Amino acid sequence: MTGSTAASFTADDYRARMERAAREAAEAGLAGLLVAPGPDLVWLTGYTPPAVTERLTLLVLTAGHDPVLVVPALEAPDARRAAGAPALTLCDWADGKDPYTAAATLLDASGRFGISDNAWALHLLALGKAMPGSSYTSLTEALPMLRAVKDAAELDLMTAAGAAADATFEEIRKVRFAGRREAEVAADLDRRLRSHGHQTVDFTIVASGPNGADPHHEAGDRVIERGDMVVLDFGGLKDGYGSDTSRTVHVGEPTEEERRVHDVVRAAQEAGFSAVRPGAACQDVDRAARAVIADAGYGEYFIHRTGHGIGVTTHEPPYMIEGEEQSLVPGMCFSVEPGIYLPGRFGVRIEDIVTVTEDGGRRLNTTSRELVIVE
Amino acid sequence: MTGSTAASFTADDYRARMERAAREAAEAGLAGLLVAPGPDLVWLTGYTPPAVTERLTLLVLTAGHDPVLVVPALEAPDARRAAGAPALTLCDWADGKDPYTAAATLLDASGRFGISDNAWALHLLALGKAMPGSSYTSLTEALPMLRAVKDAAELDLMTAAGAAADATFEEIRKVRFAGRREAEVAADLDRRLRSHGHQTVDFTIVASGPNGADPHHEAGDRVIERGDMVVLDFGGLKDGYGSDTSRTVHVGEPTEEERRVHDVVRAAQEAGFSAVRPGAACQDVDRAARAVIADAGYGEYFIHRTGHGIGVTTHEPPYMIEGEEQSLVPGMCFSVEPGIYLPGRFGVRIEDIVTVTEDGGRRLNTTSRELVIVE
Repeated sequence: MTGSTAASFTADDYRARMERAAREAAEAGLAGLLVAPGPDLVWLTGYTPPAVTERLTLLVLTAGHDPVLVVPALEAPDARRAAGAPALTLCDWADGKDPYTAAATLLDASGRFGISDNAWALHLLALGKAMPGSSYTSLTEALPMLRAVKDAAELDLMTAAGAAADATFEEIRKVRFAGRREAEVAADLDRRLRSHGHQTVDFTIVASGPNGADPHHEAGDRVIERGDMVVLDFGGLKDGYGSDTSRTVHVGEPTEEERRVHDVVRAAQEAGFSAVRPGAACQDVDRAARAVIADAGYGEYFIHRTGHGIGVTTHEPPYMIEGEEQSLVPGMCFSVEPGIYLPGRFGVRIEDIVTVTEDGGRRLNTTSRELVIVE
Repeated sequence: MTGSTAASFTADDYRARMERAAREAAEAGLAGLLVAPGPDLVWLTGYTPPAVTERLTLLVLTAGHDPVLVVPALEAPDARRAAGAPALTLCDWADGKDPYTAAATLLDASGRFGISDNAWALHLLALGKAMPGSSYTSLTEALPMLRAVKDAAELDLMTAAGAAADATFEEIRKVRFAGRREAEVAADLDRRLRSHGHQTVDFTIVASGPNGADPHHEAGDRVIERGDMVVLDFGGLKDGYGSDTSRTVHVGEPTEEERRVHDVVRAAQEAGFSAVRPGAACQDVDRAARAVIADAGYGEYFIHRTGHGIGVTTHEPPYMIEGEEQSLVPGMCFSVEPGIYLPGRFGVRIEDIVTVTEDGGRRLNTTSRELVIVE
């Protein structure tokens, strides 16, 4: 499995994170946090189970008590090897036993709990059954900013992941595009991200010509042609922290319109970045980027939010979207990625990961945002 | 992403599956089924979203209505390409809109629904908020056998996946073990499974010497030595259907005790297999295998259930476990995988996928279950 951050953090780091999480939960009026395998568990304990299955693995955090990790007996040896294990009490359960009753004995049966967004419905429903008086809220709704502000060590890892993605772009802009299938270029991206230290590659979008107008088109059998715009959007995890960058390149000389659309997106990305500063609201970043595109007459073709947070996973709060009034805080990391998508014709997206500094923002991706011409 | 079965099934196949699911849900007293990305959605529609994120993707099945797939607008083009798309109505929602209210308009707001086991808690909680009178049960609890009985085309795919795993074992038994790290042999397994047609490799357990006593040990830095027992347990998805087989090999000549323990596990696996027939209960398979190990004096060292169902995912009902009274039905596929784990010393596990036939069982893994000596 992926997502290990074991190399970078100690049991004390994890203990401090768990204490803070339990404290913030109590301050939010919750009886505790129930943490499922995935980004929350990795961030709090360094532990990723060998597989995520119907067998319950659950970290129980309650203020004033030691953290308890409920794990299948089969996987207890794996859990004991996690970097955060010394800061945990393990509660293992064997096949045929009821782990929900075991978890319930650790909890206030009439409490309200924050539970990981990605916890399985199976487990949530069974916990509710074992504790009929309990109620639940999603951890992201309860404590949206729990993982949002990165500390210095995390910022170093984010910076390194961004640099690896940039090195990948510097190589990919030199490969041949014309005459090759999107999937072949995507395989290049995958291989190069790994060669620059990514253990996990989460996406390698290569969207050429009309495919570029679909923001989530991945990569397919289409043969890239001279005259195509090609949206590249790629990232994954390096040493447990995420990268995510987009550049749009052109095969051969672009038309005037293609250049104009690219210029608009570049200006929008610049405006979004310039809006990043402590105390600004997330929606200000979205508004700043969106205004540039709307003013240029392409407003209806920018069909997604401007950005998402990133850390131990590639999509997390804060979201740069209209209506999100959360203030930016130094150490937050998120994407700024406006785009214009002209159905049936082409698309353009430019994306950097940005971190909030004391007086503005710092880009973790620094490759050229000009329209790069490829062969 | 993985799990595509697009090549094998038509829109009519998916339509029939969705109709049956909606009908069985109604018969079980449910107002409908809410299906999340993952094995349920793949099996019912052939669709796997490009990524599973906080954005809601949800298949809504209600008896007497056409199936509706709620999808993020960004991913609608992907959904339209799914093999089951012609049997679906797409309901897409744009960033910033509330997909839960949209889903609620399709549903009886005071109904009881079956929801995919692996649906995110985030989505379940939001649906409950949008429909305060609604209630939920896990799809596996409501309709545990929905995907359990495979049809002829599915059995062909399961058989092919098993044959690919067997071909992998026939190759791996010839590679060098002594002096190589577990992780190197695991990489061999991964590569060979792929070369035999697996698109996804879910696990490649290589547990040597004392590591074999941990049933879920994956593969690590331990250098395999002459004299080691080595548990191999590997599988994944080939053309959308799962393989999962275990063999225990020995590096050089085994001791008398090692041979005896292996013989006991082999006899237990044979006994479990022999208990497979239509009308037998799942727990009968567990009991048959367990009795052999208990009678030999190793009962306390067989620390997991005897088996799990397999299909579009490698862990699903039915489970071969004490207390599971579900009757076996022709077409069901599951593992029979007893083991003995001697802490600090070694482990043995032997596993075949077995399908229930009209008059007994048929193994989908047919490599030798004798103790294979490797170099």
